[in-house]
Amino acid sequence: MTRFATLVPMPLPDSALDTLRERLGADQVLTQPEDLIPYSFDGTAALQQLPRCVVFVRSAAEVAAVLELAQRTRTPVVTRGSGTGLSGGSLPVRDCIVLCTVRMNRILEVDRANLTLSVEPGATTLQVADAAAAVGLFYPPDPGSMKISTIGGNVSENSGGLRGLKYGITRNYVMGLEVVLPDGEILTTGNKCVKDVAGYSVKDLFIGSEGTLGVITRVLLRLIPKPAAKKTMVATFGAMDAAAQTVSDIIAARIIPCTLEFLDRMTIRCVEDYARIGLPLDCEALLLMETDGHPAQVEDEARQMAEIARRNGSKEVRIARDEAEANQLASARRSAFSALARVSPTTILEDATVPRSELARMVRFVEQVAAKYRLRVGTFGHMGDGNLHPTFLTDERNHEEMERVHAAFREIFEEAVRLGGTITGEHGIGVAKKEFLPGFLGKAQMRVTRELKRVLDPNGILNPGKMFD
Amino acid sequence: MTRFATLVPMPLPDSALDTLRERLGADQVLTQPEDLIPYSFDGTAALQQLPRCVVFVRSAAEVAAVLELAQRTRTPVVTRGSGTGLSGGSLPVRDCIVLCTVRMNRILEVDRANLTLSVEPGATTLQVADAAAAVGLFYPPDPGSMKISTIGGNVSENSGGLRGLKYGITRNYVMGLEVVLPDGEILTTGNKCVKDVAGYSVKDLFIGSEGTLGVITRVLLRLIPKPAAKKTMVATFGAMDAAAQTVSDIIAARIIPCTLEFLDRMTIRCVEDYARIGLPLDCEALLLMETDGHPAQVEDEARQMAEIARRNGSKEVRIARDEAEANQLASARRSAFSALARVSPTTILEDATVPRSELARMVRFVEQVAAKYRLRVGTFGHMGDGNLHPTFLTDERNHEEMERVHAAFREIFEEAVRLGGTITGEHGIGVAKKEFLPGFLGKAQMRVTRELKRVLDPNGILNPGKMFD
Repeated sequence: MTRFATLVPMPLPDSALDTLRERLGADQVLTQPEDLIPYSFDGTAALQQLPRCVVFVRSAAEVAAVLELAQRTRTPVVTRGSGTGLSGGSLPVRDCIVLCTVRMNRILEVDRANLTLSVEPGATTLQVADAAAAVGLFYPPDPGSMKISTIGGNVSENSGGLRGLKYGITRNYVMGLEVVLPDGEILTTGNKCVKDVAGYSVKDLFIGSEGTLGVITRVLLRLIPKPAAKKTMVATFGAMDAAAQTVSDIIAARIIPCTLEFLDRMTIRCVEDYARIGLPLDCEALLLMETDGHPAQVEDEARQMAEIARRNGSKEVRIARDEAEANQLASARRSAFSALARVSPTTILEDATVPRSELARMVRFVEQVAAKYRLRVGTFGHMGDGNLHPTFLTDERNHEEMERVHAAFREIFEEAVRLGGTITGEHGIGVAKKEFLPGFLGKAQMRVTRELKRVLDPNGILNPGKMFD
Repeated sequence: MTRFATLVPMPLPDSALDTLRERLGADQVLTQPEDLIPYSFDGTAALQQLPRCVVFVRSAAEVAAVLELAQRTRTPVVTRGSGTGLSGGSLPVRDCIVLCTVRMNRILEVDRANLTLSVEPGATTLQVADAAAAVGLFYPPDPGSMKISTIGGNVSENSGGLRGLKYGITRNYVMGLEVVLPDGEILTTGNKCVKDVAGYSVKDLFIGSEGTLGVITRVLLRLIPKPAAKKTMVATFGAMDAAAQTVSDIIAARIIPCTLEFLDRMTIRCVEDYARIGLPLDCEALLLMETDGHPAQVEDEARQMAEIARRNGSKEVRIARDEAEANQLASARRSAFSALARVSPTTILEDATVPRSELARMVRFVEQVAAKYRLRVGTFGHMGDGNLHPTFLTDERNHEEMERVHAAFREIFEEAVRLGGTITGEHGIGVAKKEFLPGFLGKAQMRVTRELKRVLDPNGILNPGKMFD
């Protein structure tokens, strides 16, 4: 197997820090331990590492200068936006430079004729969504952390969200990128053409590459017209299988809802305890369903979806009468993670994903595994996508329990792969799952993956120790 | 600049042909010149080259055996389906093995629960579309040659079609691939999960790689529910600008039609002469518009589109009353290439593409260039996509005129790029456009492109001389 050179980082000399201060400005470089602490972790539980320094960049040229210095000094560089990632992708490595993009946060252009939006990497997903909405357009990807996650991070992680089944994920909306390569060369790829087949899809190689191949400095996004109408409803079920059958029947009726989310009993209880929405506590599963589009279509589909839920024994179907109620129902799902996070010191959220047809089986498997390892778990997720978030409620200080959590996750991943699924639907590999990647990708694909890394980052300075073991 | 080794092919010895006959069966190997002639060209005008042999493969294992032999003997391999390509991508190179996939043409599975279809590379696009339609599902990509083009060719060229604006192109429907790498190793990538972010998108690297990185032996496609209704209409205009403004106004009204095609005066005349549809001959531009989806939405959108066309001075708006009339109107566009091809010995079809907002400007530029070089041109294409097909009516035996054609194309490509467009929207680079690729991609992207080729096909046996100069 081809292996790329392992970077042996050398502590950055003080003179190099001076060079960075000179190039970027003194206030763009943090080196004091107390300043570094907020950048020593991301959204992934139980992982922390102080970097050598944090630099804030404001242009592609500044990024290039940082990478040239890093290349010269063989210093690892970890790129980071808001640090909301859930697989340790922006966790610092020892002696690294954390390259932070949050000060490159301008919306550069909204092109209404071509339905595109150009943006710097540090803008938040919400900024992008709002800029689109302001002109009657729509940017569909909506990762759970969209209020603070950056678009650069979304592209690097190929983030998903609640609307994946109908609208796709981040990759489906990226038309072009500006990327600084590890040697400081600036690459631009893509354009405003709906169709462009000139050469390999270099763009797609960077999307989802988790900061291991280059630093994204500009993103050209595709927008779509905002759907004219939307309807939100919640259905509760006495058994998970009934909810799963409802999802299958909806798809079989040729309806692709824009949202098709579920919560299990543990999650429903935690959400109700947290948000007091008035959810019934005596059910095993809750489906949040939304349809959008032409008003007549929305009307039809909502009626059909409610009927299908009732036919499958739903105990209660509640259709939102107005936007306020719709938002309240949707917030049940949006607050799931926070609600679960409140009830234990450490919450470990996973995203094993299976083909939609295997979802009910996978949910049952998660419950069995939790029982076997004596763990508390709440499961919610994107039912239309087969994208599950089993969330273990634990305490990282309890080492014995953490070992059981890891053993449980291993079984869950193995079952997901056995059912034709994947080890990560939307959170990425990072450090959290790199040990599972070779087994999942298989020998040939892993070889190609390593070779791609080697050819683009021969000295391995970008995000070393991530994705690859 | 990193350059990969140039393959110096050695004529395949007779003993190697015997090995191929033994491995594949004698009737799967063609070596007689008269048998090779049908495989000595593809759909690209004025290009022909006899291969050393043609082999028909029936499994990934057979493909691997052919590639292992080719690797051992440093023999170039050119993969080919039906040979409908328009950029010379499946044109043989000297002394090569043509690896033909048309006998691997089975639909392997249609999974209604997960909305996927698994197929061998030699099945036609129409076979795929029909297999989806048979269970009420829809495979949207519809390249012009879909009745005979193979799905393996579609994936290799990332084919487009008439529905790109609303539904996307081939890339957007590929969920997984089985690919034989140049050294014979079999790689599988992707699965039935709607979301999967584990590792780099190796799948996207092979899509659109024009047979230069591997041989596709199985394709897993995404299907969608078939739209419940559809409406087709034609509007004619006295000026191209009025047609272009109609397109802009339709998008501004937040309508994304599934088809938005145009024909210019020359094309309209040729089509009418060929197909006798009753098209008006006194107009400068014709728009073919289709909307699909929920019946009420289709009704609304069709009405609005007709109104917008009239407001922009359309001379006539004809809405199809039934499917027969809709098919007749759509055939005006579908027969454009054939109709133009009839009127001169050689038809050279191009696909310079610009952002939608620049389309009217580009059409005018094509006309000016045609006048400057004294050439006859008919232009049609995908107006919603900015994907133009200027088609020069010429005679390849007239070398002086062919030089003017090439000079005209060079100006058209340069203008397309200047307007933010691309040198190929859907036909690929192949041999036809490889001289334009470095200028279009730019230094950094071209370097990465060459390095990707080098790392995946170090000896350069797959489709040498294609895409790269």
